[in-house]
Amino acid sequence: MTQKLDPWKSSEISDYAKLFEEFGISPFADVLSHIPNPHKFMRRGVIFGHRNFESIVHALNAKKPFVVLDGFMPTGRAHFGHKMVMDQIIWYQQNGAMAVVGIADREAHAVRGLSWAECKRIGVEEYLISLIALGLDPNRSRLYFQSECLPVMNLAFELGTKVNLSELSAIYGFSGETHLSHMVSTVTQGADILHSQLLEFEGPIPVVVPVGADQDPHIRLTRDIASKMNLFLIEVRKDKDGKNYFSVRGKGAPEDSFLRIETQLKARMKTKFTAKVSKEHMDIFGIFEEADEEILRTAVQEIELELGGYAFIPPSSTYHRFMSGLTGGKMSSSIPESNIGLSEDPKSAAKKVMRSKTGGRATVEEQKELGGEPNKCSVYELFYFHLVDDDNELLQIQKECESGELLCGTCKKNAAEKIEAFLTDHQEKRRIARERLCEFGIQY
Amino acid sequence: MTQKLDPWKSSEISDYAKLFEEFGISPFADVLSHIPNPHKFMRRGVIFGHRNFESIVHALNAKKPFVVLDGFMPTGRAHFGHKMVMDQIIWYQQNGAMAVVGIADREAHAVRGLSWAECKRIGVEEYLISLIALGLDPNRSRLYFQSECLPVMNLAFELGTKVNLSELSAIYGFSGETHLSHMVSTVTQGADILHSQLLEFEGPIPVVVPVGADQDPHIRLTRDIASKMNLFLIEVRKDKDGKNYFSVRGKGAPEDSFLRIETQLKARMKTKFTAKVSKEHMDIFGIFEEADEEILRTAVQEIELELGGYAFIPPSSTYHRFMSGLTGGKMSSSIPESNIGLSEDPKSAAKKVMRSKTGGRATVEEQKELGGEPNKCSVYELFYFHLVDDDNELLQIQKECESGELLCGTCKKNAAEKIEAFLTDHQEKRRIARERLCEFGIQY
Repeated sequence: MTQKLDPWKSSEISDYAKLFEEFGISPFADVLSHIPNPHKFMRRGVIFGHRNFESIVHALNAKKPFVVLDGFMPTGRAHFGHKMVMDQIIWYQQNGAMAVVGIADREAHAVRGLSWAECKRIGVEEYLISLIALGLDPNRSRLYFQSECLPVMNLAFELGTKVNLSELSAIYGFSGETHLSHMVSTVTQGADILHSQLLEFEGPIPVVVPVGADQDPHIRLTRDIASKMNLFLIEVRKDKDGKNYFSVRGKGAPEDSFLRIETQLKARMKTKFTAKVSKEHMDIFGIFEEADEEILRTAVQEIELELGGYAFIPPSSTYHRFMSGLTGGKMSSSIPESNIGLSEDPKSAAKKVMRSKTGGRATVEEQKELGGEPNKCSVYELFYFHLVDDDNELLQIQKECESGELLCGTCKKNAAEKIEAFLTDHQEKRRIARERLCEFGIQY
Repeated sequence: MTQKLDPWKSSEISDYAKLFEEFGISPFADVLSHIPNPHKFMRRGVIFGHRNFESIVHALNAKKPFVVLDGFMPTGRAHFGHKMVMDQIIWYQQNGAMAVVGIADREAHAVRGLSWAECKRIGVEEYLISLIALGLDPNRSRLYFQSECLPVMNLAFELGTKVNLSELSAIYGFSGETHLSHMVSTVTQGADILHSQLLEFEGPIPVVVPVGADQDPHIRLTRDIASKMNLFLIEVRKDKDGKNYFSVRGKGAPEDSFLRIETQLKARMKTKFTAKVSKEHMDIFGIFEEADEEILRTAVQEIELELGGYAFIPPSSTYHRFMSGLTGGKMSSSIPESNIGLSEDPKSAAKKVMRSKTGGRATVEEQKELGGEPNKCSVYELFYFHLVDDDNELLQIQKECESGELLCGTCKKNAAEKIEAFLTDHQEKRRIARERLCEFGIQY
């Protein structure tokens, strides 16, 4: 297969390159080959970037526990744009993750003016029921409403002591007109991301947050605050011969902490190492194996926890493209014609597909001659993101479109049938999911 | 009695005048005569200023429900400076108030670095047990820890949507270095003050907050946000003949709101009135009786609540002077010699009194000639604030001191005996209070 499934590559790559360079997001392609059975969004370049996904790759391969965390704001109906995120949550769960999902009702209430009852209804009816219907496993999931989650709120307050106005303004461009709770939302999201690592939940554990690139400021802020909260900072450095060594620094940790870490390493590591220990710092030479590095990180973590610290593992993130709206432009909950709701009538959804914007040419003749343009086609996006799991089948559609063989009418009809079938099935599953809410700890 | 019990008046009046003029704090003297059986802090000018205390005067006289709200930060031991506040809380409760007391453990944990367990221990052992021992009635009180109080946190978030960075900076002088949670504390205190007015608690109700003048920015901010949160604003205005009339404005209230208010008034008011109603505003002429004003306020409140609004009554506050430290200077929890702890050994406390700074002269001869200076004497302050309830007895001490009759040795001994007796009794009461925590809903 020489042709690659990534129709946007040519048109949008410049924007992404900027993200990679300016903000330090890494290309997802770099880690893709290390992921066992990658999700179609990974294979197809829908997920194009990441931060620190290596720790999730490690967990996936070593079958170690990790967390996938995401949140939904309950202001309108859940549509296929949200399904994208739900699909990822479920994929991670099926591959060993604990799924933690927060409903941002506090913001929906305070900023968007919805009543608490309405926030609850939308959160459950639109989001949680569809998430469960899509296959969430109650045994490894925790669903919560922000307004009911004390640990998140208390942690958010604590995170807020580690970031000042100048830092927030630099990241988000806040000004004098910014209201206080807009700023608070940044650390609330930080607490959403980090709270699973509190001892009352999972303790220190890798966490991955699948988001759009627009959410990256929250990820950067959270990673930054997480390291500020920690007592110890572990860094890989290079000695004068260019060899890697580990540096462990402590902020206000008791003087004997580093000696205690050294003792732990001596007891556990098989490889010979040397440690240079001072009051607030230690350098460790001779660790080259991943297993040894893990012993080091575990030893530091244990001592930090004993000292009452958090030992947060910096969270990981992935960045996905967004689907376009059916009418072209942005997909938006507030424009019903631009999206298909997960609880929408299947027949009306099929009609929307028949009316949607395609990458077809002005005339049939032109299209037969020039071929269609799948990279401008919202129907192709439906196949690409949701309706076609098999890469070969998708490639076939793309080829036939580009060659002018497949015309928009046929293609739309195909998509409309698939949408109708999916929604009919999904809504039957939603009916069952509603009965199972209590299995997920949801009072409704 | 021509001489007044207010030894600081001459030295500090200029500072207070500034508070009155610049910030709009009203002199407490203006309302004093309307208070049935005023507390000694009121009679003695310890409480020197207020905002909107008229609504509390009204509640006290009409025997209507109201709330007294205060908070303690559990960072160190509770001393006689805190007892000042506790005494006021209990006085209001004994005069009909519901007492609501919050322990600001979230700030103690996040900002001062105390563990949650330590915050809980100090909050209960130092503050709540002494408050109960001083006479708090479990039937009309609600004690809470901020970190456990979802309604306060959710309300704080909502209040935070009504205030922006510029406004906060203007009030508090925040700068780029100010950390986010420092800012959040302002609206958390606002939510502490306002949350009793939520329907899940008391609903709209007058609330008084007894504080030092340094806390006035929180009061001003809270009063300001409370009116921003409300759908309707009632103001008293003057017509062209200088007669009062009432103006009711609505922010985004449904168009028929004012007609509904008018209907209510017609049904309830005996006095003849005229109303000029427009879409977003109504003027009401002919209300001169307090009873009629109350009918108006109640009608507006009811319709606001029906519309899902809060109808907050702007909170009231009083401002008290602080006691000086025993060693002169400020009384501070972090300087043990400057204060006497409520759980301190009575004998050691008595010794502290014997070592404390008085308003005595350099020599006995000089003192006999010139008299002592009670306004510079920390022992006299102990009498004034805590140890002498009878104003005549206190005045006697003051006179004998000023005339040179009463020397510091005798006076200190008297104070030391009183302190020892008080603490011995208080600590016995603390022992009993500890057994009664569950009556106050405290799990410990």
